[in-house]
Amino acid sequence: MHSVNIKEFENRICYRFKDKKHLIIALSHSSYVNEKRLDKLECNERTEFLGDSILNSIISENLFKNHTDFSEGDMTRVRANVVCENSLLLCANKINLGKYLLLGKGEEITGGRSRVSILADGFEAVIGAIYLDGGYENARNFVLKIMEDIISKYIIGNVKLDYKTELQEIVQKKCDDKVLYEVINEMGPDHDKVFISQVKVKNKVVGVGEGKTKKEAEQNAAKIAINNL
Amino acid sequence: MHSVNIKEFENRICYRFKDKKHLIIALSHSSYVNEKRLDKLECNERTEFLGDSILNSIISENLFKNHTDFSEGDMTRVRANVVCENSLLLCANKINLGKYLLLGKGEEITGGRSRVSILADGFEAVIGAIYLDGGYENARNFVLKIMEDIISKYIIGNVKLDYKTELQEIVQKKCDDKVLYEVINEMGPDHDKVFISQVKVKNKVVGVGEGKTKKEAEQNAAKIAINNL
Repeated sequence: MHSVNIKEFENRICYRFKDKKHLIIALSHSSYVNEKRLDKLECNERTEFLGDSILNSIISENLFKNHTDFSEGDMTRVRANVVCENSLLLCANKINLGKYLLLGKGEEITGGRSRVSILADGFEAVIGAIYLDGGYENARNFVLKIMEDIISKYIIGNVKLDYKTELQEIVQKKCDDKVLYEVINEMGPDHDKVFISQVKVKNKVVGVGEGKTKKEAEQNAAKIAINNL
Repeated sequence: MHSVNIKEFENRICYRFKDKKHLIIALSHSSYVNEKRLDKLECNERTEFLGDSILNSIISENLFKNHTDFSEGDMTRVRANVVCENSLLLCANKINLGKYLLLGKGEEITGGRSRVSILADGFEAVIGAIYLDGGYENARNFVLKIMEDIISKYIIGNVKLDYKTELQEIVQKKCDDKVLYEVINEMGPDHDKVFISQVKVKNKVVGVGEGKTKKEAEQNAAKIAINNL
């Protein structure tokens, strides 16, 4: 009835629905439902709403359990970035979601199949559908399998970068002064160096941090400075 | 070691912790941990972060399953109000949480035991602790037992009130014109009346709704109008 290869998509996401209705709803964009004008057909907006909170819980729990050194603020920051539209788009593309979405003709013609919001929302709807069909554990397995490397990449590449940005913003608000970083010490042999950096605001040292690169040392100094300011 | 009557609190919340550590953390405000300066002691901020998302999921699922007529927007609105600080305060008071919280002396003296944010955050931390100790099902049972009447009261008393406000805001933005409600029909005997109201903007009927009171009829008319505008 619907032009979706359900089996192919289930293979793609490594989950088999007990009740295919959940999947059909998750794949049905409002433009498709409006076009068909079938009362019994439901679009994926409600399922997306549910999937969004389940996704948030799964990511929160993952950060909570795997990063016991993260503060509440760290976790909030990472989660906001991991569940942003761009990451969800990456996830949707990993399962080739665009191919399987049910869209109205107008949406189809105007490129809906690769529209960021449609794909990101659709991905959350798929999470919601798996939750409804198979419970929290299955939803978690699905999410973490697809998102674990996005979480790791974000944490490795960006979490600490945020400290420098955050410090910059705090200082700008407070006194609009310059934030200066200086390496004050290098220790150890070349292949295993440790850098110690300090950060100054208004010519006063507000944080000192160490790291295996200058960047890391600066980030750690910024982190300390944020706590001090 | 900690001055909390754990058994009494467990009776209060009808949940017995397998690992009491989760509960102790949930009850430990940062002021208490900072004062004790014990490295092994953890405050409830991380558990609160987790509890907050679990709570969101539980409420989302409850609305999704029990109110199939609610749109995504309706559910978002209800959830925002059900998980706001004031509702969480009500919940905290239901389990007499203030009595059991571990606070620093300064916080204690300045009335921390009845501070809204401390109680609301503490309630979320208790949810997080139950989730960590007993899983999603136990957390859900706990939350719904305490919050079900808050959800119902909010839905009955307020959800529909929001349509009139929402319509007013939309009209103000669009054309800054007046929104006029009129009863156009009353049907049935006095004890079982049905009212039909219409709502006009710029002298044009933009919605018609019925209800058992004038207010309800107006709200339904406003809901239709929002969809039409």
